[in-house]
Amino acid sequence: MDRFCPKARGLTVAYIGGGSRGWAWGFMKDLGMDHQLEGVVRLYDIDRDAAEKNCRIGEMISSHPEARSHWRYEVAGTLREALIGADFVVISILPGHFGHMRSDVHWPERYGIWQPVGDTVGPGGLMRALRTVPMFVEIALAIRDNAPRAWVINYTNPMTVCMNTLYAVFPDIRAFGCCHEVFGTQKLLAEMLEDLEGIKGVRREDIRTGVTGINHFTFLYSASYQDLDIFPLYRRFADRYFRTGFLKGKDDNWMNNNFDCSHRVKFDLFRRYGLIAAAGDRHLAEFVPPWYLKDQNTAKEWGFSLTTVDWREKDLSERLAKRAALLSGAEPIDMKESGEEGHLLLKALLGLGDMVSNVNIPNRGQIPNLPENAVVEINAFFSRDAITPMYSGPLPHGLDALVSRHSLNQLGIVKAAMNCDWNLALNVLLNDPQTFRLDPMDTERMLGEMIENTIDILPDAWKRAHKAGKEA
Amino acid sequence: MDRFCPKARGLTVAYIGGGSRGWAWGFMKDLGMDHQLEGVVRLYDIDRDAAEKNCRIGEMISSHPEARSHWRYEVAGTLREALIGADFVVISILPGHFGHMRSDVHWPERYGIWQPVGDTVGPGGLMRALRTVPMFVEIALAIRDNAPRAWVINYTNPMTVCMNTLYAVFPDIRAFGCCHEVFGTQKLLAEMLEDLEGIKGVRREDIRTGVTGINHFTFLYSASYQDLDIFPLYRRFADRYFRTGFLKGKDDNWMNNNFDCSHRVKFDLFRRYGLIAAAGDRHLAEFVPPWYLKDQNTAKEWGFSLTTVDWREKDLSERLAKRAALLSGAEPIDMKESGEEGHLLLKALLGLGDMVSNVNIPNRGQIPNLPENAVVEINAFFSRDAITPMYSGPLPHGLDALVSRHSLNQLGIVKAAMNCDWNLALNVLLNDPQTFRLDPMDTERMLGEMIENTIDILPDAWKRAHKAGKEA
Amino acid sequence: MDRFCPKARGLTVAYIGGGSRGWAWGFMKDLGMDHQLEGVVRLYDIDRDAAEKNCRIGEMISSHPEARSHWRYEVAGTLREALIGADFVVISILPGHFGHMRSDVHWPERYGIWQPVGDTVGPGGLMRALRTVPMFVEIALAIRDNAPRAWVINYTNPMTVCMNTLYAVFPDIRAFGCCHEVFGTQKLLAEMLEDLEGIKGVRREDIRTGVTGINHFTFLYSASYQDLDIFPLYRRFADRYFRTGFLKGKDDNWMNNNFDCSHRVKFDLFRRYGLIAAAGDRHLAEFVPPWYLKDQNTAKEWGFSLTTVDWREKDLSERLAKRAALLSGAEPIDMKESGEEGHLLLKALLGLGDMVSNVNIPNRGQIPNLPENAVVEINAFFSRDAITPMYSGPLPHGLDALVSRHSLNQLGIVKAAMNCDWNLALNVLLNDPQTFRLDPMDTERMLGEMIENTIDILPDAWKRAHKAGKEA
Amino acid sequence: MDRFCPKARGLTVAYIGGGSRGWAWGFMKDLGMDHQLEGVVRLYDIDRDAAEKNCRIGEMISSHPEARSHWRYEVAGTLREALIGADFVVISILPGHFGHMRSDVHWPERYGIWQPVGDTVGPGGLMRALRTVPMFVEIALAIRDNAPRAWVINYTNPMTVCMNTLYAVFPDIRAFGCCHEVFGTQKLLAEMLEDLEGIKGVRREDIRTGVTGINHFTFLYSASYQDLDIFPLYRRFADRYFRTGFLKGKDDNWMNNNFDCSHRVKFDLFRRYGLIAAAGDRHLAEFVPPWYLKDQNTAKEWGFSLTTVDWREKDLSERLAKRAALLSGAEPIDMKESGEEGHLLLKALLGLGDMVSNVNIPNRGQIPNLPENAVVEINAFFSRDAITPMYSGPLPHGLDALVSRHSLNQLGIVKAAMNCDWNLALNVLLNDPQTFRLDPMDTERMLGEMIENTIDILPDAWKRAHKAGKEA
Repeated sequence: MDRFCPKARGLTVAYIGGGSRGWAWGFMKDLGMDHQLEGVVRLYDIDRDAAEKNCRIGEMISSHPEARSHWRYEVAGTLREALIGADFVVISILPGHFGHMRSDVHWPERYGIWQPVGDTVGPGGLMRALRTVPMFVEIALAIRDNAPRAWVINYTNPMTVCMNTLYAVFPDIRAFGCCHEVFGTQKLLAEMLEDLEGIKGVRREDIRTGVTGINHFTFLYSASYQDLDIFPLYRRFADRYFRTGFLKGKDDNWMNNNFDCSHRVKFDLFRRYGLIAAAGDRHLAEFVPPWYLKDQNTAKEWGFSLTTVDWREKDLSERLAKRAALLSGAEPIDMKESGEEGHLLLKALLGLGDMVSNVNIPNRGQIPNLPENAVVEINAFFSRDAITPMYSGPLPHGLDALVSRHSLNQLGIVKAAMNCDWNLALNVLLNDPQTFRLDPMDTERMLGEMIENTIDILPDAWKRAHKAGKEA
Repeated sequence: MDRFCPKARGLTVAYIGGGSRGWAWGFMKDLGMDHQLEGVVRLYDIDRDAAEKNCRIGEMISSHPEARSHWRYEVAGTLREALIGADFVVISILPGHFGHMRSDVHWPERYGIWQPVGDTVGPGGLMRALRTVPMFVEIALAIRDNAPRAWVINYTNPMTVCMNTLYAVFPDIRAFGCCHEVFGTQKLLAEMLEDLEGIKGVRREDIRTGVTGINHFTFLYSASYQDLDIFPLYRRFADRYFRTGFLKGKDDNWMNNNFDCSHRVKFDLFRRYGLIAAAGDRHLAEFVPPWYLKDQNTAKEWGFSLTTVDWREKDLSERLAKRAALLSGAEPIDMKESGEEGHLLLKALLGLGDMVSNVNIPNRGQIPNLPENAVVEINAFFSRDAITPMYSGPLPHGLDALVSRHSLNQLGIVKAAMNCDWNLALNVLLNDPQTFRLDPMDTERMLGEMIENTIDILPDAWKRAHKAGKEA
Repeated sequence: MDRFCPKARGLTVAYIGGGSRGWAWGFMKDLGMDHQLEGVVRLYDIDRDAAEKNCRIGEMISSHPEARSHWRYEVAGTLREALIGADFVVISILPGHFGHMRSDVHWPERYGIWQPVGDTVGPGGLMRALRTVPMFVEIALAIRDNAPRAWVINYTNPMTVCMNTLYAVFPDIRAFGCCHEVFGTQKLLAEMLEDLEGIKGVRREDIRTGVTGINHFTFLYSASYQDLDIFPLYRRFADRYFRTGFLKGKDDNWMNNNFDCSHRVKFDLFRRYGLIAAAGDRHLAEFVPPWYLKDQNTAKEWGFSLTTVDWREKDLSERLAKRAALLSGAEPIDMKESGEEGHLLLKALLGLGDMVSNVNIPNRGQIPNLPENAVVEINAFFSRDAITPMYSGPLPHGLDALVSRHSLNQLGIVKAAMNCDWNLALNVLLNDPQTFRLDPMDTERMLGEMIENTIDILPDAWKRAHKAGKEA
Repeated sequence: MDRFCPKARGLTVAYIGGGSRGWAWGFMKDLGMDHQLEGVVRLYDIDRDAAEKNCRIGEMISSHPEARSHWRYEVAGTLREALIGADFVVISILPGHFGHMRSDVHWPERYGIWQPVGDTVGPGGLMRALRTVPMFVEIALAIRDNAPRAWVINYTNPMTVCMNTLYAVFPDIRAFGCCHEVFGTQKLLAEMLEDLEGIKGVRREDIRTGVTGINHFTFLYSASYQDLDIFPLYRRFADRYFRTGFLKGKDDNWMNNNFDCSHRVKFDLFRRYGLIAAAGDRHLAEFVPPWYLKDQNTAKEWGFSLTTVDWREKDLSERLAKRAALLSGAEPIDMKESGEEGHLLLKALLGLGDMVSNVNIPNRGQIPNLPENAVVEINAFFSRDAITPMYSGPLPHGLDALVSRHSLNQLGIVKAAMNCDWNLALNVLLNDPQTFRLDPMDTERMLGEMIENTIDILPDAWKRAHKAGKEA
């Protein structure tokens, strides 16, 4: 092997949820554009047809003239078939359909609960967890039995709950969860450097950040660019744009972009807690009492939008159209890299270049005032066959209670989901700040309805549990 | 010394807040009725006249024909004078007057926050902490310098915050906090035994209870009478009286008794969390989201009353009248024991009889999912010169987040109070469930007003801090 | 039920090792002499004949005119039969025969290692663990499957290793280990009270002791009698008898009593570490570097004897003769109580009287500087259906390293025994102070020989492991 | 500022022990050869003349034609003068003279204790600690008062004890300890790559290593070069050279090189524990029972030498001669870099390039089975104004007891040194494996003599403590 540019060949990647419209394409292109990696990707999806289609797209990427490596693509018929002997496992699944999601996101509106995303915390996050956890139990067992030493990358939400499940079922699993929300904040900081200091062309990966918290409620406790401390700059930045939001480069219709925001929530949280919140405002708003979500209008005033399921449906149909176009050749494959780090982490684990990245992994004391073993989002050092957690230190007073509430709840949700425990499900929902304004009887009724709405995709025991809960 | 009935003579007890109208009398009578203890009590109070009057009442108790021991009483002119060489220190102070208390309890009503007690958590508890912590800093330093090995019993509220302060300032202090709320629950359980099972005459101290949580939000995770498990009985009891409340022995006007309750909140919490809440419903209701405190009427429906400061003023004037009557001899001293355990704990520490009691002490791992070193309310074993914390185990899922929120907040409050940190004070208040329905700007305004209302009794730095906060 | 003298009837006790010559008789008599307990004892032993004989002795006890309760006795044919539905499980087994024990205790003498007991630490303790752990794995699984909520009392040595095994295999087991070594020290303190202060008739259970450490290397960090602090007295006592030993009531031949000692080791350890060592000197000497065990003579000088296996054989044959005499009626049953606390702990767990006792249970933070979850010997509070660990605090500097070495080793031994890991077995043995003077090659050779000596009673894998070890 | 090659100017470095003959020269040259750093170094030494001389050498380096930056050098008259306003503090002191060192290293030989270094553990390490700790108390206080936010690099031995002292006195200090022993092991691994695999030219900094343990008893739990796992190679390497030692490039007289070794101890430890010991064999041998140090000959057989104080004296006189030659110009300054990382860590902390390095810092859970807050040697990530500890995980069974014994002892030594506690000093010495073969009375006598030998440089209280100890 050429010691001066080592390559890893013969790799086996199992992709659970390999029919994904979006994530999978980016990942396959990132692999194709990397000259140091080669092997086979096994696509597994309960929607086998989607996996077949992605397999063909994968092959198109592999044979693209710009491709720098030539991966093979296969469709796996079973989870076991996908996993056996895999070096890496990617999990990116979406249990349920838009009907379920509609209940998650919009049903609570009847009770005055407005959820900009509804996939992490709040009633939407809970329901999504109740149907996702059982699948993660199955996946964890399959990994334990077929690929116990594989590195497992999860992209599925609700991230923390999914990761907690993997480790609860198979404590020795080598899994980590990746999320790009922090990257977005790094980009914002790069824009800030230009806006405030005229420093141009800074890449987001050159912004060093100290990361702490939990997924989608993540915070930077330090940030720097080269020898520059970003915190004093950010204080000025937050003060300057607190009222207007930071809208640079956004046209008048930016609020229609369901993922964009004006960062006002971020600025408000910074002024309160002194840390830089590192997720989209839509996510952040769901973790605190309904300060930013009293009603639809409040969200608008704070400069972020509520992503509707209608929008998601439209978005999917566009992606399906795009898939058809790609497959038919009507639209050429564009080999642009995704901006995600998944394949780089994979390279680091192969010994092809160390890197620091924020990941979701169990807390082994890195955040001393969050529960030991609860999954947290922190920096880790990726190197050959190792992910080394880096110490974040305790969350500051004031913020600690905000985060630990969710961290404890997420452990409870896994237990409720694994045991179909109606009472515990209700209790964790009562702990969620989005329900704080409700009479607990209303919270209970809402939970019952949301379970009924989605009972077709929940374990059978929920029928009985729900019934018992109602009678109690 | 007679080995078969050992006595402790020559004891020195320092009573900080020795002018107390009520607590002090009970404590002095308990001492006078115990034949194994004798010594001197030094009464110290910033209201020296009140201490003088209690000194005379103490002497009347000592010379009462029913008295079984003859304690001496002295008035100490300074904290140092009271403490030097003391074996035991009792702290029972009440910083501020009814004007301050009126702001604590009633001002938040303008924002829709109804507080049944307002002395532990919520805006009232915070304000009371801000003025009490500085005095506890002073007391802790004085104990460190004058009586470092003394056993220190605190009765002052907010209990947890006061205790956290003592240990923050002087980590080697041998202090514990006593509160009788658990006793009240033990009495309820004894009444339940009669009501459900016809078992009569059970003394509250014969009900064994496993105690966990924090002061005024305390829970029993086990309870038994002899070989009888009380939990299955309590489940029946809670179900039977959930709607009506348990009102045995209460006349139609019981709701006018500002401390009484129908236990409906207790029953509701039991049905949710499976543990027996062990404080008055008035206290419990303040620790959760405003389930029981949406408005005045909700409290009434749940069968507990909101203690007004008017009532407290009337109550005090009655106690002052009683004091005058006692001193003039118009009313005879009644040597009935108080039902408190203070003197018994003191005896246990002297080696005159071991006992288990619930106390407020720093968490050394007894509740693994509350912060290490935060003060918690748990059982401890009292024996000669030792208080041994007993392991409670983790709080159950669902309840954990409810309690840890306050536990973390209480640590933050001590820091905010010691540093006059306006921003931290606001942040912890925003974490308090009583403010969850408010716009954070309103919470901020309310805090500013409450600081202004009581600025005369707060450290000077609050003037500046408050101003800076307003400008920020 | 009579609430003023409650009784527990219909109890089921499973006795594993029910053929025991000694322990079982005392336990059966203790049960027979207690008027509050009644039920059935199921005796199980791999030596079924011994169980049958004890069953008959049990029946003789039950029908003895002095008996205050009438237990039934049965012989169980299998572990499962003994356990199913049991309320309590007693484990008191002795794997192997004198041949094995002879290798444990005497073989190391060839290498200059003199072991007064050889059943806890050192080469003897390790070997005994290697053959006992597999049986405890089996017992733990059987309890998990047949009596998961039973309270389990273990008397088997090596105590800590056995207890660690039970919890490793079945983490929810409700097991505790009892040992009477602390009682012996309490008796010594009672004798001291008479010797120094003329206080007569003090019962050992009236000496209050704070207990910490690990089994057979246990320490008192506090001790009192009523209001009397025993530590200053013990200092005088240790100084007075340091050179001569405390021999009160011992005749010239006391050294022939294989269990007795002059307490010089205890005094020496007190003078070094300031805590009262609470086990026989024979045990204590095995836990430290060979200070007291350089050779046979050193032991003699320090006033304790080395228990030989010859003596143990003779002792057993006397007990077998006694058994025959009891069964034939040649010797009457003497209903004297044993002085053990087993039946009292059982009563406490039934709600018939709380008590504090020292037990061997997993460390849940009670000794913060020993490993979390390692089994330690500390006080616990026994009450209805609960054993509540009491906080001991950290071991003092200097002593901490002595104890934690063994505590860590004991965890390693369980792992070595469960995995038949030759290399780990050697490494833990190299950590044992009894091997410190040896060349590690000699330690390795000795271990190999001791495994060979007892290979008939070890799991098969040791044959292979040992072979691989030798070849490596 | 040039964003593409940022520089740090105007830095202030305080060098405590600035008269050092060796370390200081290398450090000054490393600074001079780096083009990104500039500022002033303040040399402070109790031997002011030595500091003056180094100041002149520093100026010669600064004005050397090859120098890439121009640092100023000053002599500070007091600790305060050196520290006030410093950005960085370097501590590299050597309390005492060769007479003291002679007692440390050679006196124990009278008792059969042979120490190859005698500066870290064992009787030599303890004595050196007793005289060094008081100076570190003084330095920690001076840093707290004059440069509380400075980054502090310690090079002084005994490393762990010195670092423990800094943090005990000033818990908020930003100090870390650097040691090059791990570098030596990385060099060995690079040589191994050539020897076994023919991979040439690997730089030691390109060997990635996972580091755990304590200074001078440090272990690699992982090691890789690019995508190559070094552990399987090292197993082959250790087996191949176990008997002969790895002597590549060493002539027949290599054993006269007091710092060199044949790595046989390293290989032996690897075969026992499966981790790569990462310090010179001379150091490693001192941490275990006298396996490698039974006598002088054993050391020789294991292929390492005992560094004598005679050699050290000779070595110093050569360095003094070299200093004179440098100052007189007789010998030119050689601008070769030192191979140390100190200046690189300093650059990383300034934001001029992140790096991972092994450092000595308090354990915040990175090694869960060593005491919390005890100083350990682990990897940390160095970046702008931050040292982020990286998680190492628990030490494996078998090795845990070896390391924790010393870790606990080192905490005890700091306490003994700060309180001049004779009894504790003796107890920790009794825990040291080097004394395991001694009668404890001999250990006690030896300690007394070594205190007497060096009493002139010890705090006065040792005179009294020692006397009391002897009388006790």
